[in-house]
Amino acid sequence: MKIFDVTVPISEDAPIYEGDPRVQIEAVLKLADGAAANVSHLCFGAHTATHVDAPNHFIEGTRRGDELELEKMFGPCRVIELPEGVMLIGPEHLGSLAGVERVIFKTRNSAFWDKPDEGFRTDFTALGLEAAKLLADAGIKLVGIDYLSIEAFGSDGHPVHITLLKKEIVILEGLDLRGIEPGDYDIACLPLKYIGGTGDGAPARTVLIKR
Amino acid sequence: MKIFDVTVPISEDAPIYEGDPRVQIEAVLKLADGAAANVSHLCFGAHTATHVDAPNHFIEGTRRGDELELEKMFGPCRVIELPEGVMLIGPEHLGSLAGVERVIFKTRNSAFWDKPDEGFRTDFTALGLEAAKLLADAGIKLVGIDYLSIEAFGSDGHPVHITLLKKEIVILEGLDLRGIEPGDYDIACLPLKYIGGTGDGAPARTVLIKR
Repeated sequence: MKIFDVTVPISEDAPIYEGDPRVQIEAVLKLADGAAANVSHLCFGAHTATHVDAPNHFIEGTRRGDELELEKMFGPCRVIELPEGVMLIGPEHLGSLAGVERVIFKTRNSAFWDKPDEGFRTDFTALGLEAAKLLADAGIKLVGIDYLSIEAFGSDGHPVHITLLKKEIVILEGLDLRGIEPGDYDIACLPLKYIGGTGDGAPARTVLIKR
Repeated sequence: MKIFDVTVPISEDAPIYEGDPRVQIEAVLKLADGAAANVSHLCFGAHTATHVDAPNHFIEGTRRGDELELEKMFGPCRVIELPEGVMLIGPEHLGSLAGVERVIFKTRNSAFWDKPDEGFRTDFTALGLEAAKLLADAGIKLVGIDYLSIEAFGSDGHPVHITLLKKEIVILEGLDLRGIEPGDYDIACLPLKYIGGTGDGAPARTVLIKR
């Protein structure tokens, strides 16, 4: 069994989606200063680095992050690699979805993680609405991508998110798939569990497992 | 396959180890106020709710949370239930460790989670030093317990932590084992991945899996 960590770390250098809160991490107790232990304090937005979106991110009064079903985030997962030039993922890129439960898209975005301190980029490859509808109709449980949003930047009304979230599909964003070959894996995605705010999503440590 | 979530949620009501930072969670963007999405902002200490301790929590300059080996936190795990009156776990409670890779202790502490808003308690059941040494010598990869520290409150010099962390055993604290029968499971423990501060530990969403 080989475990691939596909999680982007939360850090003050991580690119942050436009309008979202910045990251702050500091040591509040230090052995070096005579404290009994080292203890750090972390502050960040719920959609920082690798994270899941809950339905309540875009549809008021719906399921929150702590209510997401873990079964959707655990099990067989197909990694589909997109050709280099693709900016919008369409039906033609999906292939047969027969028997597929979870889908992750590896795109040109993964190369963005080579230079995480360049700041947030708006020119990322995203999932198109037609493909989102096909995934929703196919009963897919989780859809993931390798940058901070599954949906093209500036998309009016966020129809891709809403199409997926209405079906309670877990959206997994901000994956680092640089080291991952396309193919079939098992995924384990375990979002931070918290209660408070609007419960709109959470950073999610995610691994792909090849058995 | 049945997945048991044994994670205590981070919330402003969660008990916090004495001296550690408080939790603050707020909605910073709200659909209800006309924002494009709900977005929450979270602040907490690295040792809040269910979390792992990294060696650098107590031993300066050693392995940080983002450097913990995921293989240690994934795989077969034995849940040992302690009799009701036990305050300190001793060698006599371990049983045979032959073939055991990870150990979690279910104690009277789990009942503390019935009333999480009662605040931090110092009278929790903990791992004794003799048992810690036996676990370290047995090559155990992960040791877990169902309250906020593996070590008795006020323990001078933290010898239990240091015994385990010197061997790079992952310490998993703050588990909620109320719904768990003793026996053998698979564990998946995925700590929040961050870089910053002293990297002393991290909240860790944790599940036990019965196949």
